[in-house]
Amino acid sequence: MKKLLITGTAGFVAGYFIEFLKENEIEYDILGLDIVDKLSCDYPSYKYKRINLQDKELIKEVIENFKPDYILHLASISSVSESWSYPVESFVNNTNIFLNIIESIRELQLSTRILSVGSSEEYGNYPSDKMPLKEDYELKPCNPYSVARVSQEMLSKLYADNYGLNIIMTRSFNHIGPRQNDKFVIPSFVKQLLNAKTTGTLRIDVGNVEIVRDFLDVRDVVEAYHKILIEGKIGEIYNVCSGNGIKLKEIINMVAEQLSITPEIYVDKNRLRPTDNLIIVGDNTKLKSELNWQPKHSLVQTLKDMITYQEKFYGKEN
Amino acid sequence: MKKLLITGTAGFVAGYFIEFLKENEIEYDILGLDIVDKLSCDYPSYKYKRINLQDKELIKEVIENFKPDYILHLASISSVSESWSYPVESFVNNTNIFLNIIESIRELQLSTRILSVGSSEEYGNYPSDKMPLKEDYELKPCNPYSVARVSQEMLSKLYADNYGLNIIMTRSFNHIGPRQNDKFVIPSFVKQLLNAKTTGTLRIDVGNVEIVRDFLDVRDVVEAYHKILIEGKIGEIYNVCSGNGIKLKEIINMVAEQLSITPEIYVDKNRLRPTDNLIIVGDNTKLKSELNWQPKHSLVQTLKDMITYQEKFYGKEN
Repeated sequence: MKKLLITGTAGFVAGYFIEFLKENEIEYDILGLDIVDKLSCDYPSYKYKRINLQDKELIKEVIENFKPDYILHLASISSVSESWSYPVESFVNNTNIFLNIIESIRELQLSTRILSVGSSEEYGNYPSDKMPLKEDYELKPCNPYSVARVSQEMLSKLYADNYGLNIIMTRSFNHIGPRQNDKFVIPSFVKQLLNAKTTGTLRIDVGNVEIVRDFLDVRDVVEAYHKILIEGKIGEIYNVCSGNGIKLKEIINMVAEQLSITPEIYVDKNRLRPTDNLIIVGDNTKLKSELNWQPKHSLVQTLKDMITYQEKFYGKEN
Repeated sequence: MKKLLITGTAGFVAGYFIEFLKENEIEYDILGLDIVDKLSCDYPSYKYKRINLQDKELIKEVIENFKPDYILHLASISSVSESWSYPVESFVNNTNIFLNIIESIRELQLSTRILSVGSSEEYGNYPSDKMPLKEDYELKPCNPYSVARVSQEMLSKLYADNYGLNIIMTRSFNHIGPRQNDKFVIPSFVKQLLNAKTTGTLRIDVGNVEIVRDFLDVRDVVEAYHKILIEGKIGEIYNVCSGNGIKLKEIINMVAEQLSITPEIYVDKNRLRPTDNLIIVGDNTKLKSELNWQPKHSLVQTLKDMITYQEKFYGKEN
């Protein structure tokens, strides 16, 4: 059985990735790594190790012992807003931890295929008429998180092109789905709107809801990641996105409609970021045409599933 | 008196920078930092501290105590060839040490002006018809050292634009001069050619001598650095270069001519790098026009000075 190392197994995406494997009866010998405690996981042959990926010697030892065929590197501090407050932590826990992994693979001379997850934030501010964003655009990162991701991507390209490592890269656009932490924007909207419905207090506090983003259901994301990890071309970058842009305000309206409420939207200046990209919409042609991937979840369905999940999670009645 | 913090004071450039200040009677209260032992330095009011810039807490403490008006950040592992063998060390000792410094300044809310030294290697491979390289070109780094420098530059830009730090950036092209370590290409040529002259064994071993570079005398470099540090526009990037491209082979010929010898040139495959940029020539219009800088040393004179220095240093007769 092929061996798969997953970093960041306590995170939102890893959970769905493992569910995807189970549902599709795809078998790997999995070793999960995270800095926090082990999650319950009923995937057969799943092992877990708690580790700080900043510890280069330790990660190298783990890789040397496990000798993975594949690495799905999901560990990251992936919040843009947190990166403004903690730029060094964001940099180290994106760029440096990734460098520790690929350097271990280089030193050990393994032929492991590695998925390096990047971000749509790497593109920076492009005007509307440049949408959708294509993989060959120049990168103009303008927040600490995206600087860290661009650095990671440059290292990926270097290690693939010059040291012969089998690295494939993504630029992943916003993903959403049930179980997403409500520090992220859409689950936060859902939570507030559900609360508004229950309490009758229709006020919800938001940041800049005029910005346009490209949201992809996490279940479509993990299917894309598996395809890219197994079949993607070495040294290449794939946008992982829906291809559709939507204003955050529109999403609030869609959720409110499903809940049959009319919220009062207040803009909280503390939630405005120093430099927000106004519009981010991706082009997924490469992923679709090269790897025969198609998203399967509509935005309406995803939001419905997120509402259902939070209703259960917070014990609300329908 | 204004306070100036210099990192990497044991290095080639720092020595010339301090000499430049002395010769021009420019007075600062200087604190020099380096990871190696203190060099002799007869600059008035020069203090020194041995420090590893990877130690974030310590560097912050030093900055908090000294409260510099200016920081000239020269500390770096700046060899491209070494970066191929030690990519992590190159990355950490360029990008992360710089991040530690600017994050300290941000946390301490100081208005220090900081010179961030970058490299012509950041541009990557451009064809001859794109020379000279201009500051607004897209960066396509293709060795570990240049990836680290691009990351540093992205962080500089971010901290200047978004956190309001007073950072000015360079992209410095190859610099040469007396006292340069002979692990670098031109002093290595001079050393071998002087040896050829003395011993009569005319063979010299070289790497790829067909590549074209833009060499600037280190004494012109430090004058540029002082101008940029004091007068450069915040958040801007300045090429520091001669504007003239020359083949390495040509330089060998120029040195050989001064020594009146005809060497036999052997290409040593071990000295060929995985991906050498074939041609790097810079455009120095911005530096000249905005800051009224002019190089003062001709290449012939610089090579002559380098020969004279090595003759003394190695105790050779003329």
